Amino acid sequence: MPYIAATPKPPYYAVIFTSINAPADHAEHTALSARLVEHAKTFPGFLGIEGSRNGDGTGVTAVYWSDRESIHAWAKDPMHQAAKVKGRELWYSHWMIRICKVEREYGRTDQKT
Amino acid sequence: MPYIAATPKPPYYAVIFTSINAPADHAEHTALSARLVEHAKTFPGFLGIEGSRNGDGTGVTAVYWSDRESIHAWAKDPMHQAAKVKGRELWYSHWMIRICKVEREYGRTDQKT
Repeated sequence: MPYIAATPKPPYYAVIFTSINAPADHAEHTALSARLVEHAKTFPGFLGIEGSRNGDGTGVTAVYWSDRESIHAWAKDPMHQAAKVKGRELWYSHWMIRICKVEREYGRTDQKT
Repeated sequence: MPYIAATPKPPYYAVIFTSINAPADHAEHTALSARLVEHAKTFPGFLGIEGSRNGDGTGVTAVYWSDRESIHAWAKDPMHQAAKVKGRELWYSHWMIRICKVEREYGRTDQKT
């Protein structure tokens, strides 16, 4: 499966989620994250996700959406909201969300073209 | 040292650099990346960097800049340009650059406040 998200010609949106895992058991976190991505894929504006975590528990995940409205719809989703509570209370010591408008992209993707 | 970049109130800019390491020796890559970050810090518009790589060589790095002009100045830097050539030719099998305007941010940072 390609790693780099198959995003359309800009503009579209990116949510940069930076986080530091708390010293905790992350088995449920890992399992729920995978289920949450599958659920996000069912949302119309979802474009893709690129996740990454260092060995020390720090990490950056970029999630791409077609527009601001899709990000709002996802923010209101009950499964997502329940996961956010667990994230804040158990899984992450620190985290930051940045909502961005992608203006330009270029590169050499691993998507089949 | 804090992991999460100390960014100002939006708007500011983010460059999302997604990459897949090529099967190569990454010792020079790692050393040059560290030197490149130190060099980027000397640029006026540089706000911070959050890097992350998975065990399989995929990774996402977010670099924050105050404005588009600072990103252009950095793109023209000779040390940066030389590193990009090595990146394309040796270190990355695939990569994508996305230039974004950060519209909103919130979270619980590990920066001292």
